[in-house]
Amino acid sequence: MTPEQQLERVRSSFAKQGLMATLGATLGNVLPGMVEIALRPHPAISQQHGFVHAGPVSAIADSAAGYAALSLMPADAGVLTTEFKINLLAPAVGERILARGRVVKAGRTLTLAQAEVFAETVGQEKLIALLTSTLMAVKGRDGISD
Amino acid sequence: MTPEQQLERVRSSFAKQGLMATLGATLGNVLPGMVEIALRPHPAISQQHGFVHAGPVSAIADSAAGYAALSLMPADAGVLTTEFKINLLAPAVGERILARGRVVKAGRTLTLAQAEVFAETVGQEKLIALLTSTLMAVKGRDGISD
Amino acid sequence: MTPEQQLERVRSSFAKQGLMATLGATLGNVLPGMVEIALRPHPAISQQHGFVHAGPVSAIADSAAGYAALSLMPADAGVLTTEFKINLLAPAVGERILARGRVVKAGRTLTLAQAEVFAETVGQEKLIALLTSTLMAVKGRDGISD
Amino acid sequence: MTPEQQLERVRSSFAKQGLMATLGATLGNVLPGMVEIALRPHPAISQQHGFVHAGPVSAIADSAAGYAALSLMPADAGVLTTEFKINLLAPAVGERILARGRVVKAGRTLTLAQAEVFAETVGQEKLIALLTSTLMAVKGRDGISD
Repeated sequence: MTPEQQLERVRSSFAKQGLMATLGATLGNVLPGMVEIALRPHPAISQQHGFVHAGPVSAIADSAAGYAALSLMPADAGVLTTEFKINLLAPAVGERILARGRVVKAGRTLTLAQAEVFAETVGQEKLIALLTSTLMAVKGRDGISD
Repeated sequence: MTPEQQLERVRSSFAKQGLMATLGATLGNVLPGMVEIALRPHPAISQQHGFVHAGPVSAIADSAAGYAALSLMPADAGVLTTEFKINLLAPAVGERILARGRVVKAGRTLTLAQAEVFAETVGQEKLIALLTSTLMAVKGRDGISD
Repeated sequence: MTPEQQLERVRSSFAKQGLMATLGATLGNVLPGMVEIALRPHPAISQQHGFVHAGPVSAIADSAAGYAALSLMPADAGVLTTEFKINLLAPAVGERILARGRVVKAGRTLTLAQAEVFAETVGQEKLIALLTSTLMAVKGRDGISD
Repeated sequence: MTPEQQLERVRSSFAKQGLMATLGATLGNVLPGMVEIALRPHPAISQQHGFVHAGPVSAIADSAAGYAALSLMPADAGVLTTEFKINLLAPAVGERILARGRVVKAGRTLTLAQAEVFAETVGQEKLIALLTSTLMAVKGRDGISD
């Protein structure tokens, strides 16, 4: 695949994630090894105090890191998260929540990636979470090529 | 609070989580130090391969562990997750996904909890994820008492 | 290998870990899927406050979990830790620090294990740390068969 | 404390860590929010395959991150690690292992830090591990002011 085909694979895979539509999440910049996903806080994704629940924050951070990994994987590989760790630094409130995933080290089988999550309010951005994840390149499994 | 009031606080707090309704998640058993949350796989919460996305799996595991912690906290405390780690062992597919959270060690400020997540199919259950989380008891902050 | 040969492999591998001798760590019970390692607090393994440093606590917990995994692996596989997470619940002080590792889920390539770490004082034991780790079965790499 | 006193506190605290002498670890650069610790591979800190054991790698990474945090804490606070996560990317071999810790977000009670660990061989350096840790500022506890 050309680099542009790699990035197109990320975009079309994102469109297949039913969860992203449900959360109202949208794809931002997509570059080799770096992917952004954003969402807007609203009551349908909140926890009991009105903040965005850790689940959607984790979901966009995990997907941003996972797609950053996929953007560097060969055409016949799909990506699966094997584990992640997230530190939640501040409540997820504001106009927009943006996750920026990037590859730390790409390996043949395992890739290490991180995602920073920012809360944006009137032009300011604040780091609210940091995720580290291990992604596995999966080959030869039916239905998994993205 | 009496133990029953503690458990009632968990139930009413769960009902306030907009995300849980959006995901179609429901509360199962609620005991002191142990809380269950379940959801049914459907396309609106899937990732690109049709499995339940790691986000909802993490969301119910995080909430089950968090409410297990809240069930042991004093009346004037609310609960916030400061960090969690999740290992994803197998794809989240089946009839029902069940997260069972329990407290490992309750502290005055920080509580350690775990949640096991099972995929259930025709009476069988399979461990698909394990989450470990740190919960903070928050006092004296507006709007946080659950 | 017979189960007894599996356990003997763990014992002889432990004896090759230079670090364990340096830390004064000793092997306790060794069973299929469960391994114990202990050490005694002393100034040579302390941090600045006189507690046992998180490093040796992590080292025996990681090794106990790793050997629990190795005890279930085929004869031609060696074990490597790919990642671990540890929560430190209380200072590591007392007469003896004991790590008990056990396998959560054994897979062909990746195994998930946990280790609980206890501080023992006059017959009492207190949970002071919880480690979760991912172990990889490594085959066909020179010098790695344990 | 002046910034220089802050850094001096890190240096004198490091000298009190019995473990660091036992491992042969040495302090490198010490700056506000950034601390380096190095060690040289030798059999006394090895695991069964002859690599440096994950324990010493974790120990210097945890201490580098912890001292980066301490370098920004008030004079009456000591630092304790409450949890860390480490991804081990490649075997720890080479002439020197260097951990570089830096603060991601300093808070009043909790600080998030990271440490990258590099293996150096004839002028090349390779990222072999990434640690993320949560440090707690401890006040008013006997014997803890560093």
